[in-house]
Amino acid sequence: MSGTVKPGYARPLDLKRGRVDLGHGGGGRAMQQLVRELFHAHLGNPWLAQGNDGSVLPPAVGRLVMSTDSHVVSPLFFPGGDIGSLAVNGTVNDLAVMGAKPLWLSAGFILEEGLPLLDLERIVTSMAAAARNAGVAIVTGDTKVVEHGKGDGVFITTAGVGSLDDGIALSGDGAIPGDAVLLSGSIGDHGMAILAQREGLGLETSIVSDCASLHMLTASLMKRLGPSIRLMRDPTRGGLAATLNEIAHQSGVGIEIDEPAIPVHAPVAAACELLGLDPLNVANEGKLVLVCAAEAVDALLAEMRAHPLGSEAACIGRVREDARHFVQMRTRLGGRRMVDWLSGEQLPRIC
Amino acid sequence: MSGTVKPGYARPLDLKRGRVDLGHGGGGRAMQQLVRELFHAHLGNPWLAQGNDGSVLPPAVGRLVMSTDSHVVSPLFFPGGDIGSLAVNGTVNDLAVMGAKPLWLSAGFILEEGLPLLDLERIVTSMAAAARNAGVAIVTGDTKVVEHGKGDGVFITTAGVGSLDDGIALSGDGAIPGDAVLLSGSIGDHGMAILAQREGLGLETSIVSDCASLHMLTASLMKRLGPSIRLMRDPTRGGLAATLNEIAHQSGVGIEIDEPAIPVHAPVAAACELLGLDPLNVANEGKLVLVCAAEAVDALLAEMRAHPLGSEAACIGRVREDARHFVQMRTRLGGRRMVDWLSGEQLPRIC
Repeated sequence: MSGTVKPGYARPLDLKRGRVDLGHGGGGRAMQQLVRELFHAHLGNPWLAQGNDGSVLPPAVGRLVMSTDSHVVSPLFFPGGDIGSLAVNGTVNDLAVMGAKPLWLSAGFILEEGLPLLDLERIVTSMAAAARNAGVAIVTGDTKVVEHGKGDGVFITTAGVGSLDDGIALSGDGAIPGDAVLLSGSIGDHGMAILAQREGLGLETSIVSDCASLHMLTASLMKRLGPSIRLMRDPTRGGLAATLNEIAHQSGVGIEIDEPAIPVHAPVAAACELLGLDPLNVANEGKLVLVCAAEAVDALLAEMRAHPLGSEAACIGRVREDARHFVQMRTRLGGRRMVDWLSGEQLPRIC
Repeated sequence: MSGTVKPGYARPLDLKRGRVDLGHGGGGRAMQQLVRELFHAHLGNPWLAQGNDGSVLPPAVGRLVMSTDSHVVSPLFFPGGDIGSLAVNGTVNDLAVMGAKPLWLSAGFILEEGLPLLDLERIVTSMAAAARNAGVAIVTGDTKVVEHGKGDGVFITTAGVGSLDDGIALSGDGAIPGDAVLLSGSIGDHGMAILAQREGLGLETSIVSDCASLHMLTASLMKRLGPSIRLMRDPTRGGLAATLNEIAHQSGVGIEIDEPAIPVHAPVAAACELLGLDPLNVANEGKLVLVCAAEAVDALLAEMRAHPLGSEAACIGRVREDARHFVQMRTRLGGRRMVDWLSGEQLPRIC
């Protein structure tokens, strides 16, 4: 607790040496101060400034899309991002791959007693930058504090609302035999960046997370070539393998991918080799999987490659009839193998 | 992990003896199974059934209201509710007191490894009942798992979206000197129910949380007497004292309340006495504070009392001019005292 304060006067938060304590979650003065001097100071916008139990937002045109993600990544900071940028981009991307325009986010913080306020400030600053970059506002929030040993630094749950233009209907059940499968770039960067940081692998080449907001890329693809797009997904937890298996099951089809066509950066491939991991199972946080009509492949690839987040885009496979809904891969050596999703957990707390 | 499963065949979740493991958060088969057999089985609705990264919702009429709350209550189960009903009602109430019609909720679960699946099922069942009761659908969700000792059973963050009819503008800055302050019923029940349960106080009379959804009460008040209502609030963390101080500061007014007018149930008063707590600082989860024009007091009280959640409604005070924004109380003994909000935390993890 910050001690007793005279009405009308309070010492500012000690952002340099201060730590989160249970008082910051108590609904009293200490919490008000944290909200004002840290959250509002960085995330400030007219909606948050309303200061009520909920934020009043303008009417949205068209259908809405709503999504949520809880973030428990460990460590909190990693090359290419942190839990703050991840929490914003994760939810923005869930809206973007539905074809929606991301509009508003909420953020619920569960802080562990003892978290340095400096770390929290760094995370909130990063959220603010990610939100600005994605063109969304964090319009409402909540802060809770749990005792030391009952949490792990900070968990952040974001929920997002976007608007969906008339006529857009992207869904995991939209893939049709004959369709092509496109990927916006290399796989495995996020998961291996986290793992290298966590385990102190001391890999010579630093691997950087691909954590990014995909909404500009998806918006330009939808605008130019929307009718040829069947569905979009961001291959996060479970990696490309889990995403393709989900699509195969939802659409009731098989998928065949070509190993040589799938971009994997050399340091990621090397780290996976070293640890016995398959890049197909490793999480990404700024990649797009897109299923489209075969005749639109060239145009969509050109459009993707014109965007910084799609410069390594490739056509990696096709959708086939298959009553068993198998995902299979033609390997570099000319063979074929099943691409299964894992039963459980390969890399815990990657997002 | 549930072990290797043959494609197309999986043992059902062992809800009787099973526990959450890291595999349930891994994005693979185990997570899909948990989502399908537990979350979808209880919360099922057409939006959740879309099975995509986000849910597509119909257009909403009018302005939107968005709110979020993270829930870390300990213990998870208490007389009158559990973390599941709390997570739904908490966010529904934040929308309701803004004058909005609650429509859709998202739910992000952070599970601790080792949580009995039976507990999780009980919580999700309770969320489903609370959502049905409040007329809202849980349209999208997320599940993460953290290692044993890095969480505390389960944390649930809900976000909610509601629609706001034209002309409604309730805000904490709406109180005017001369206005009356109404309270829908007794205070302190939720906080003392949690505390009694947590500390094993062995109080003779069991205290039951007031955890409830206020949206039907607020809707009927708005419909019948909307123009005379300045603002509504639900006095949760920090209790009635914190809520009144927030209103006084936002509106730039003073507030004077009458101790004898404030309903406190005898067992709550006794438990507070025993523990040296002030019921004014204790959290509520199903109470409404309403500031209105003085001439509407009788009509609003009658309308409140006609509703089961407002049967003990009372006029507890009035808004005054006061440049210092003090909240003061006329005590039972005829004196006056300041009603301050606490600096920090009186009762941690009450919601």
